[in-house]
Amino acid sequence: MAFGYNGKILRVDLSTRKISVEEPEEKVYRRYLGGGTLSLYYLLRELKPHSDPLGPENILIFCTSVMSGLTAPGFNKYTAAAKSPLTSGFGESEAGGWWGPELKSAGFDAIIIKGKASSPVYLWVHDDQAEIRDASHLWGKMTAEVQESLRKELGDNRIRIAQIGPAGENLVRYACILNELKHVNGRAGLGAVMGSKKLRAIAVRGKKNIEVFNRESALGIVKQLRESYVDDPSGLGQLGTARVAPILSAGGMLPTKNFITGFFEKAEDIGGKRMKETILTGRGTCHGCFIRCKREVKAEKPYEVDPIYGGPEYETVAAIGSLLEIGNLEAIAKGNELCGKYGIDTISFGTTLAFAMESYEKGILTSKDTDGLDLKFGNHEAMLECIERVARREGFGDLLAEGPEMAAKKIGKGAEKFALHIKGQPLPMHEPRGKKSLALAYAVSPTGADHLENPHDPFFEKEAGLIDIHPLGILDPLPSLDFSTHKVRMFVYLQQYYNWLNSIGMCIFTAKPFGPFPITKIVEYSRAITGWDTSLWEMLKVGERFANMARVFNLREGLGEKDDRLPERLHQPLEGGVLKGERIDPEEFAQAREMYYGMMGWDPQSGVPSKYKLEELDIGWIVPQLSRT
Amino acid sequence: MAFGYNGKILRVDLSTRKISVEEPEEKVYRRYLGGGTLSLYYLLRELKPHSDPLGPENILIFCTSVMSGLTAPGFNKYTAAAKSPLTSGFGESEAGGWWGPELKSAGFDAIIIKGKASSPVYLWVHDDQAEIRDASHLWGKMTAEVQESLRKELGDNRIRIAQIGPAGENLVRYACILNELKHVNGRAGLGAVMGSKKLRAIAVRGKKNIEVFNRESALGIVKQLRESYVDDPSGLGQLGTARVAPILSAGGMLPTKNFITGFFEKAEDIGGKRMKETILTGRGTCHGCFIRCKREVKAEKPYEVDPIYGGPEYETVAAIGSLLEIGNLEAIAKGNELCGKYGIDTISFGTTLAFAMESYEKGILTSKDTDGLDLKFGNHEAMLECIERVARREGFGDLLAEGPEMAAKKIGKGAEKFALHIKGQPLPMHEPRGKKSLALAYAVSPTGADHLENPHDPFFEKEAGLIDIHPLGILDPLPSLDFSTHKVRMFVYLQQYYNWLNSIGMCIFTAKPFGPFPITKIVEYSRAITGWDTSLWEMLKVGERFANMARVFNLREGLGEKDDRLPERLHQPLEGGVLKGERIDPEEFAQAREMYYGMMGWDPQSGVPSKYKLEELDIGWIVPQLSRT
Repeated sequence: MAFGYNGKILRVDLSTRKISVEEPEEKVYRRYLGGGTLSLYYLLRELKPHSDPLGPENILIFCTSVMSGLTAPGFNKYTAAAKSPLTSGFGESEAGGWWGPELKSAGFDAIIIKGKASSPVYLWVHDDQAEIRDASHLWGKMTAEVQESLRKELGDNRIRIAQIGPAGENLVRYACILNELKHVNGRAGLGAVMGSKKLRAIAVRGKKNIEVFNRESALGIVKQLRESYVDDPSGLGQLGTARVAPILSAGGMLPTKNFITGFFEKAEDIGGKRMKETILTGRGTCHGCFIRCKREVKAEKPYEVDPIYGGPEYETVAAIGSLLEIGNLEAIAKGNELCGKYGIDTISFGTTLAFAMESYEKGILTSKDTDGLDLKFGNHEAMLECIERVARREGFGDLLAEGPEMAAKKIGKGAEKFALHIKGQPLPMHEPRGKKSLALAYAVSPTGADHLENPHDPFFEKEAGLIDIHPLGILDPLPSLDFSTHKVRMFVYLQQYYNWLNSIGMCIFTAKPFGPFPITKIVEYSRAITGWDTSLWEMLKVGERFANMARVFNLREGLGEKDDRLPERLHQPLEGGVLKGERIDPEEFAQAREMYYGMMGWDPQSGVPSKYKLEELDIGWIVPQLSRT
Repeated sequence: MAFGYNGKILRVDLSTRKISVEEPEEKVYRRYLGGGTLSLYYLLRELKPHSDPLGPENILIFCTSVMSGLTAPGFNKYTAAAKSPLTSGFGESEAGGWWGPELKSAGFDAIIIKGKASSPVYLWVHDDQAEIRDASHLWGKMTAEVQESLRKELGDNRIRIAQIGPAGENLVRYACILNELKHVNGRAGLGAVMGSKKLRAIAVRGKKNIEVFNRESALGIVKQLRESYVDDPSGLGQLGTARVAPILSAGGMLPTKNFITGFFEKAEDIGGKRMKETILTGRGTCHGCFIRCKREVKAEKPYEVDPIYGGPEYETVAAIGSLLEIGNLEAIAKGNELCGKYGIDTISFGTTLAFAMESYEKGILTSKDTDGLDLKFGNHEAMLECIERVARREGFGDLLAEGPEMAAKKIGKGAEKFALHIKGQPLPMHEPRGKKSLALAYAVSPTGADHLENPHDPFFEKEAGLIDIHPLGILDPLPSLDFSTHKVRMFVYLQQYYNWLNSIGMCIFTAKPFGPFPITKIVEYSRAITGWDTSLWEMLKVGERFANMARVFNLREGLGEKDDRLPERLHQPLEGGVLKGERIDPEEFAQAREMYYGMMGWDPQSGVPSKYKLEELDIGWIVPQLSRT
């Protein structure tokens, strides 16, 4: 029985207000699946090299996948992708929630947005149709207000809304896109891209059933999975992602004080357990997922925190907590709420502020530069104030809104050594000095320092976790601090795995080794959904295809080997915690990177993919783009 | 539940008469599985570079796999491997039948044979034990006699015997090894290696049950397979492999008259259908297989043919039939019997004789050179006579016993243009000019022109066959005559697949697309048998590992890019049949080869694997061997 996967792509040109629908041939879906990979398929074809990320020529893509919107846990993510205003390279970020599945039910796998509206607009997508509508009345409003207004205006409370906030409107370089006010495409500054197009929101309502090739088999797999998932084995459901903050601190790996140390004395105060005992009011979740790791928090004092914005993830409690030496959970929760209100990526904001605080401590910035704000580490009031000023690009906030790389350039005076970013993307809250493969992952990630591009963890490096990744051919347990060729191989294989998960919009917390879905079962499930006689081999080839397409995109835009480097701080020893003294040895790093390039089939020195590798992956059509580098 | 795959390797040193047993760690089994790959693991470690293939230093390995001996169809093959006296590179050849499963039941996965006996011996393996025994009384005897003697001597009629015949004793360079007198390790001259060690036979008797991780699941898969196999869909069971001779001739691809043409007017006379209507007396099979493609033939006149030697395969009806313009099926059956009696590879013999016949036609050889034999094409009596003379290395037979490459060198006078071999291995009976990927397969095969190393067929290149190989990521139907980059990619992916099947000793006629076993089911079956949480990804990596190990072995022995070439004839147009005029364009070939090298992660010009590729495959330990090239 042949199965034709059918899907539609919505195309919107905001300049001409033209809307059209395209139905790609099935092979496009099978080779690119969705997410970052399918986005790259369009970006590489249609985005002119060296376009201004904040100009009308940039293309913003919202992309689900052939697997999106199903009742299995984890298949709810969609990718937002464009040329990034932070890195000037490939930018992408995924968000869970309900918006992706809703788009799919509305009849579309993806939306490709070009051009720029002459005045603020929003997009209304429903039942195989789309309209561009005026959003002048929404411009400048907080995100919760906009959500409420749109639902009222469109007369349906079940409408799902992906939107930017005032930060996106104001082109804060790390502005985010949110759906349901709490599921976030955080990284790469895609909210600024959306803002530059004067597109405030995309409201979606879908009522179609998603077609499935073999519903019985698909449901059987989900049932089995549900039954095998007992007692929240990792604690993720009960304690959320923030559960790991104290664990990481005890292991010397909690980013603290702008990565100066890996130990934070108040780590318990900001962890998931404390959150549960204090401000937690509910557990949120995403479409189809029974893990329920999302948080909902409420506080009255010292800050009033509105639960509509959910609650802080681990990344947030570290980025605007330990990284700034802030141990006040209510302040962090307030910061999380403000970032939600304004549409700011908490990670990038935290890392940018940590840069400013260290510059302030070292006297490079003074209160004259900060408009009087006392930017000492630990000052949570200053942190909260900065969010508002950044969102409004007000005074000192205008500088911070540029992100650490550009801000450091403007400041000069050696400030760049406190700017923790890779390719302009601020570092997320994981410590490469404690898990060496992450140093490589961050350096070579096409989106810069991005923990979801290649989520590595010491967990993988223990025998227990390894059993789960045996299907990838990773058989050797490797200590976290190992940085050998074996570690590089592990990284290469895992990268292809995570690139695949990205392509199908699957949440890493639902797939092994983090979550319950065994790797080979994901393949089986994919077969049931699509009807394709596919295999892990074919799926990991998609992962490899992604890595190569993203690499070619970046090379074309001028990013290459010279940019695959770590901030100087990571080459310096950790100053505190049980890993005190650990550093990334530059020599070891250079060797690992060369080995990585070579293992990928790229030139070991320049990191340029060979035309043979591209042809092997059936993406020979991008070979000509290499010559534009 | 953890499962430890346990296996034992038997080591025999014929010079010192020392026997020992080794138990490799499980990871060795998981990375190398068995067959050619596990053989290369030992050859690369233990065989000194530049050893004389026929000297005591060569190492001869008989290797089953982690999957061998099971009740599913196809898992009965074992590999014989050594440095080849035909190619001076990696030599291997697989045989089905019962010997491999019997060895496994006797307690061993493999036998590694070193040294050389001072006088003829045989090996007697049973119940975890082995003995070296005198074989002086067997030396010089026909294979059927030896089988009978040994069974009588050891008092057990169920003993399985792998042996050489007089041709192996006499170091005929294409002597074979046979088990049950009709299952043959034909290619690469491994019978000569065995003869050089004065090892006439290995008698095996096993009574152990083979351990299986999940018997219920394994049996379920086999049951399902058996039930889905109805009515001999391909005709392979009813008509045997020789069924294709007339089909190929009609398609212009039946090697005829030393590859001058692809059409043989008597093709019907030598095909499987005619065989069934005339001399067929029974259908044989291999351990565990319900297809029963093997033949048993009997004739009284004009030649008496003993059914104990089975019957001719397709390769044989072409090699000593159409290739020599012989259309007499009884003569072919007699030739098949004689090759079985003496232990000669029918393919290599046929291609060698075709070389001699064309040299004779062109006047380069005369009846003075041939000891009076009238070597004109079509002379089947001369063909039969030559088998005996080759086996005994008698007069002109001594020259032919060297194979076409060496014989042509001895003859001189431009004879080499009629010598159809690659790296010294005579061409088997498939026509690269009619299926272009085969030109590449033959040229780069580590064992030279070897149709089982990379069995390509136009069948793959039609949409119907393609569906079966979708799990390999091959989605595009490609015409047989296409020689584009897409074809090279298809070849690269299929090669990894077939290398995997080789590693697990699986018969290609039982696996998709030739046979009933779907690719993803083979993986599922592997999981049930070994208990490993493995995947097609991990398994194809073994296939890739094989290709790289074999390549490094050959480079180390002096074989490289200069040897990856086709005989001149294939660059000339076919002179007859519906593909008249087709040739392998040297330019296209060179481009395809460069693309292949590059896609493999090898230097596109020299074909040398990069150290990065070897490290990626976890065979970094062979990197130092590259510097010996």
